[in-house]
Amino acid sequence: MNLAALAHRPESEDSFLYTDKTLHLRFHTARQDVAKVTVLYGDPYWRIPDASGADQLVYQCQAMTLLGTGQVLDHWGVTLEAPYRRLQYLFEVTGLDGTVWLYGDRGLRKNTTEERHEAENYFRMPYFQEIDRVKTPDWVKTTVWYQIFPERFANGDLSNDPVGTKPWRPTDHPGREDFYGGDLQGVLDHLDDLQALGINGLYFCPIFTASSNHKYDTIDYLNVDPAFGDKALLAKLIHAAHQRGMRVMLDAVFNHMGYGSLQWQDVLRNGKKSRFASWFHLYQTPLTPFHNPLKGEGQPQYDTFAFEEKMPKLNTANPEVQDYLLMVASYWIKTFDIDAWRLDVANEVDHHFWKRFYQTVTAIKPDFYVLGEVWHRSQAWLNGDEFSGTMNYPFTQQVEDHFFKRRRAAAEMVALLTDQLMLYRDQTNQVMLNMLDSHDTPRILTVAHGDEDLALQALAFTWMQTGSPCLYYGTEMGMSGGADPDNRKPMDWSNLGSPIWKRVAALVHFRRKYAATLGFGTTRLSVTDAGLIKVVRQGRETLTAYFNTTDRAVTVKGDAVFVQGFRNGQLAPKGFMVVVG
Amino acid sequence: MNLAALAHRPESEDSFLYTDKTLHLRFHTARQDVAKVTVLYGDPYWRIPDASGADQLVYQCQAMTLLGTGQVLDHWGVTLEAPYRRLQYLFEVTGLDGTVWLYGDRGLRKNTTEERHEAENYFRMPYFQEIDRVKTPDWVKTTVWYQIFPERFANGDLSNDPVGTKPWRPTDHPGREDFYGGDLQGVLDHLDDLQALGINGLYFCPIFTASSNHKYDTIDYLNVDPAFGDKALLAKLIHAAHQRGMRVMLDAVFNHMGYGSLQWQDVLRNGKKSRFASWFHLYQTPLTPFHNPLKGEGQPQYDTFAFEEKMPKLNTANPEVQDYLLMVASYWIKTFDIDAWRLDVANEVDHHFWKRFYQTVTAIKPDFYVLGEVWHRSQAWLNGDEFSGTMNYPFTQQVEDHFFKRRRAAAEMVALLTDQLMLYRDQTNQVMLNMLDSHDTPRILTVAHGDEDLALQALAFTWMQTGSPCLYYGTEMGMSGGADPDNRKPMDWSNLGSPIWKRVAALVHFRRKYAATLGFGTTRLSVTDAGLIKVVRQGRETLTAYFNTTDRAVTVKGDAVFVQGFRNGQLAPKGFMVVVG
Repeated sequence: MNLAALAHRPESEDSFLYTDKTLHLRFHTARQDVAKVTVLYGDPYWRIPDASGADQLVYQCQAMTLLGTGQVLDHWGVTLEAPYRRLQYLFEVTGLDGTVWLYGDRGLRKNTTEERHEAENYFRMPYFQEIDRVKTPDWVKTTVWYQIFPERFANGDLSNDPVGTKPWRPTDHPGREDFYGGDLQGVLDHLDDLQALGINGLYFCPIFTASSNHKYDTIDYLNVDPAFGDKALLAKLIHAAHQRGMRVMLDAVFNHMGYGSLQWQDVLRNGKKSRFASWFHLYQTPLTPFHNPLKGEGQPQYDTFAFEEKMPKLNTANPEVQDYLLMVASYWIKTFDIDAWRLDVANEVDHHFWKRFYQTVTAIKPDFYVLGEVWHRSQAWLNGDEFSGTMNYPFTQQVEDHFFKRRRAAAEMVALLTDQLMLYRDQTNQVMLNMLDSHDTPRILTVAHGDEDLALQALAFTWMQTGSPCLYYGTEMGMSGGADPDNRKPMDWSNLGSPIWKRVAALVHFRRKYAATLGFGTTRLSVTDAGLIKVVRQGRETLTAYFNTTDRAVTVKGDAVFVQGFRNGQLAPKGFMVVVG
Repeated sequence: MNLAALAHRPESEDSFLYTDKTLHLRFHTARQDVAKVTVLYGDPYWRIPDASGADQLVYQCQAMTLLGTGQVLDHWGVTLEAPYRRLQYLFEVTGLDGTVWLYGDRGLRKNTTEERHEAENYFRMPYFQEIDRVKTPDWVKTTVWYQIFPERFANGDLSNDPVGTKPWRPTDHPGREDFYGGDLQGVLDHLDDLQALGINGLYFCPIFTASSNHKYDTIDYLNVDPAFGDKALLAKLIHAAHQRGMRVMLDAVFNHMGYGSLQWQDVLRNGKKSRFASWFHLYQTPLTPFHNPLKGEGQPQYDTFAFEEKMPKLNTANPEVQDYLLMVASYWIKTFDIDAWRLDVANEVDHHFWKRFYQTVTAIKPDFYVLGEVWHRSQAWLNGDEFSGTMNYPFTQQVEDHFFKRRRAAAEMVALLTDQLMLYRDQTNQVMLNMLDSHDTPRILTVAHGDEDLALQALAFTWMQTGSPCLYYGTEMGMSGGADPDNRKPMDWSNLGSPIWKRVAALVHFRRKYAATLGFGTTRLSVTDAGLIKVVRQGRETLTAYFNTTDRAVTVKGDAVFVQGFRNGQLAPKGFMVVVG
């Protein structure tokens, strides 16, 4: 047996309360190396005198289930309960070679009666603390999100267009500094269209006063950008969305501030004497001209986002800054009843701040959704006291690498996605934001080489996964676009109700119809002998989906409830089908 | 190469700020399977146009050092700096078989130029957040602790002896309910003796009003038990200790309350109508007679410590209980200037409470030491916002299993202790409380079968390790004792200044003399060809120690600065020697 591969981490995504009464355990072994994993468990204080009168530890046994196979590991799982809310547990691992080892708190132990009865060998879940259980909002699990880049969604009010606004041409390749006049009135005007599409979550890129078209350079966190509308209009829009059963998520940029903000302008004028000097990370003055090390100009005078002179980084370790940003975060929840914050560059802001943030927003709204922009492994933020979930770009990349770029085989993608599900607790996986594109990536239709069938297939695959799926505005219109800013073209409203629109709408309605299963059920990924990707979701019902990413048709049986490219019992390349059962 | 064994966890004990400017990384591979691990790293935003004008990721390389070898893994480490306080990193692993793989955020990748330049493959330390850095008090790293069980240390005031106090006979085998009259005046009277012994930290078992001799059943958290003295005497004692450069740690029992407490008595009288009903975990009434499931009496009516009717568990998720206990914790720091809290049954209290606790006590005293009683792996509590360290019973067990019980060979102990050092960050390991016995275990001299040389050898081994060592009262007097309550005999003062006392005193003075190295330096454990255990500590100087746990003398060279059983170049069984260099 490959002993070096055995792994388990107590009180983590390997050992967590799923409900107040159930503990989920995971255990990892080398791929196809282990025949059986049994967990020995019991109450740590449950001892009964043996024949000699000495207290003996009592334990029960339960076999673990193979949850899935990753790149190099097999992953096992089990659900346990505890009558007295305390548990200790030890893994008994049987290799395919017939050897048996115990794996526990003190390392590997031989499988002897003595070691099995030694309490110190056992891992602990010392007490089922409901207050510590990682909780994620259930409504997110049944939400299909729609991401709006407000400047490019719809121009509902010509009176607030910025000087130099360009004509609304969906075929344009927007420049970095262009304005097209999109605004909140435009969103309000099209709420019925979004409802028809079936989505029930609106995710807005920043709408606060800023100078750029993307508004990631916040000047005033407490105002709606005048080119987008005003607070009354926002309130009306949120109310109208809520009336339609749609939740609303706004985007907050707390890592850095806009160059034009009152605070940074004061620092520029007064340097270290500014009353806002401690709001930033200043190292030397004068602050201008900025030293950009990428241009060989030496150490920057202050910390910025990346090496962007115009985006001075906030010092979120300063309690004054914390209080200010928390006031901002609270204001939009309390006054406008928003349901979620998406947090920009969230990984570069300190954990202390996010813990205060999470306490603050969930105190106002217990089922508030906190979504962090983190492009990499996010365990450090996902322990129930910082973010509910993160933007699942690692998922995006693995899907793209197989479906669109053909860089990795189906089996490799399945393995990598199975590994990714092991990074977080089940309730966290359920609220990860699964999107195939965003304002920060090329559009999927472009990545899919303009192939709508292929794009739809990858979207359908995403919709079948654990996680909250998100559409980027315009996907339903068949819009294309390369990297930023090309991915931010004005919305092509001419395609409303077109065939591609109908296909995307059908996809959204499918996800929502089966939300009880797709939002909460287990996930098992594999590749069939014929090379189809198979996704089994088990929840209220069982849904099994097949995706043909090979280049030939494959015979599949069953009555599909959702389908593409299936004819005469044959699933065509780029096709998929979902069956119940 | 054994790919299934490769492991690294970002933002954890595998990736942490050690100082504000240095990041420590660890990486794990199968034992003796890998020739080289190189870390590729750089600023995530540092890209330079290549010949084609496309931005190319720039990275530097640094080889990792083999930190040590565990049971089945090799552990590698490296220290990195970051000019712009941001880092991304990727591991390039070269197997002894010559194969090379990349291990990063997206899993295993082939070692190609393309993969090395793909930013998404890199793990992240997104920003060096000083506020998030795990900080542990430096003074603990140079402290040698002395644990006092007050009822048995010294009787300095006969006037406060409980009714039925037994005569002070160190040869007694105390019963569970016996009283011997030990008190705070006794400690004050012997402070000079403790100073002569060399210790500079006093760790008191509970001193608050309670009914038992051990005082773990707190009746009044705000009073000194009258049989021990009063607050004025405690203040005097703490002042006298501080005058001698000794720190003071008190013991708090926040998991459960004493049966005799006002709060629990009120609940017993008024049941669910008691204003303290929500302070506990009540399930059904009447509360008496108690249903002990171990006796087949069904579900207990309320949660307790273990199945102890007399120790009702506190509901620390209740803000009122939190506020009360935090008031208690603050009171003894603010009013009596204590330096540390030892927290009883700390693992069974919720993390939310401990986070508030840590914030509260460090707000009063930034270098306060918070020591949790956790007998198992403690990562969940040791991330800088709950405990500074835990009682290192896993260390105790591995040392005993080899030195005293001969259950495991030297090489196995060395491997297991090396693995244990990988569980926590370096600054955490430095403040783990390393003790070989306590009021909860048999005394080492008894575990060592009465063999003083052997006990001293294991103590010296402990003193050479990373971690804050602790003596249990009476060890210096050569006291013996089996499991609780036999380990709580009245102190044998007749041995003050005896040979064993001198040997222990020499050990304490040795540790303190080399505190700069032993408190902060690196640790490398191995077994020599001749079978000696070798400990290399590298700090201000290098200290190398050899321990002979074989049954024959072994030749060793060098000028020892501390030694036992070394004669004519031969280290006898049960001997040890420490050399500088």
